[in-house]
Amino acid sequence: MRRGFFITFEGGEGCGKSTHIGMLCEYLHKRGYDVLRTREPGGPALSEKIRELLLFAKEGLQMTPRTEILLFEAARSQHVSQTIIPALESGKIVISDRYADSTAAYQGAARSIAMGEVKMLNKFATGGLEADLTILLDIPEEEGLRRAATRDCGKTDRMGSQELNFYRDVRKAFLDMARENPERFEIVSSEGPKEQTFEKIVKAVEQRLLKNV
Amino acid sequence: MRRGFFITFEGGEGCGKSTHIGMLCEYLHKRGYDVLRTREPGGPALSEKIRELLLFAKEGLQMTPRTEILLFEAARSQHVSQTIIPALESGKIVISDRYADSTAAYQGAARSIAMGEVKMLNKFATGGLEADLTILLDIPEEEGLRRAATRDCGKTDRMGSQELNFYRDVRKAFLDMARENPERFEIVSSEGPKEQTFEKIVKAVEQRLLKNV
Repeated sequence: MRRGFFITFEGGEGCGKSTHIGMLCEYLHKRGYDVLRTREPGGPALSEKIRELLLFAKEGLQMTPRTEILLFEAARSQHVSQTIIPALESGKIVISDRYADSTAAYQGAARSIAMGEVKMLNKFATGGLEADLTILLDIPEEEGLRRAATRDCGKTDRMGSQELNFYRDVRKAFLDMARENPERFEIVSSEGPKEQTFEKIVKAVEQRLLKNV
Repeated sequence: MRRGFFITFEGGEGCGKSTHIGMLCEYLHKRGYDVLRTREPGGPALSEKIRELLLFAKEGLQMTPRTEILLFEAARSQHVSQTIIPALESGKIVISDRYADSTAAYQGAARSIAMGEVKMLNKFATGGLEADLTILLDIPEEEGLRRAATRDCGKTDRMGSQELNFYRDVRKAFLDMARENPERFEIVSSEGPKEQTFEKIVKAVEQRLLKNV
């Protein structure tokens, strides 16, 4: 019943996901595609409530890495069933800012949850739904953190205040996954000018969309 | 490092868990034991917030069975790490109103999540921590629902408004688990007078506590 196309954007802080997702939605919309833009953690009302718990955990509200990953997967599970699958079934292009690979990179590689457990939880939460195309926006860690700090004007949340080593582990995890799944991933460097990066994204999307038709 | 003793109470709606947990806490406290009473879903602040999402999901706030079990396990994971394990390490008797078996009975047997998946999620969330003694308060489904309705004065939440067939499946799941794990479970009928039920509970607890010393 799945007639649409599912694109996910992945990458560390400050890699330009929001900007490029916005540009890609606009681009596809102009070409007559029906596009749904969404994000993780988030989407439907319940997932947004879980997002609040995850991102703005107040000081004193303890959260272990295992609790954190279970909350991410709960939000994802609802997002998949209530938002992503219905949109794909109705023929839409769904573009999600982060998806299961982020959990593997952040909770798995960088918070030391065993990768086998992360995969098992991802599979349970998604019911096996994978992206048709995953754009990994890659940027050296110092540059990503610098851009994220500029963007946030010094304002940070729990997910944004991780330090350089953590960013490095996350980046390596994303690149490893991309190399292991070349048929799904497209690694796009976002170090250069925005227009140049976007051109590469459009090329990757169009190649896959044409194949999909 | 675990010096305490971990007791869980399980059973369907209206089986008398709250009453008997209260009586047992009082009884053990008078005999000089240091007792921590807790409940699931709930415990630490984060788990209580997750409980709110689970029990009072507003109309229109959709929740799939997979999302539901992931939220239960997130609450449990934090409960185990932040509340139960520290209390056991400090030598306390921990008494929890519901624990992992409830998830197996409610989400597994009665909501059709595969039992292998429930076990895997329970193990991930608890880190393998099992109760030393599980008291299963057993009562025929009609009587349990009648007592629950009287107690709630007609007020129901999402977990309490399930119908008879659901209750029957849950009861059967609890009894099956108890028969499969006789060394951990004690099945206590709570059909008769409260005092008689409590006497059986005390006997079961004292036998195990003495063995534990």
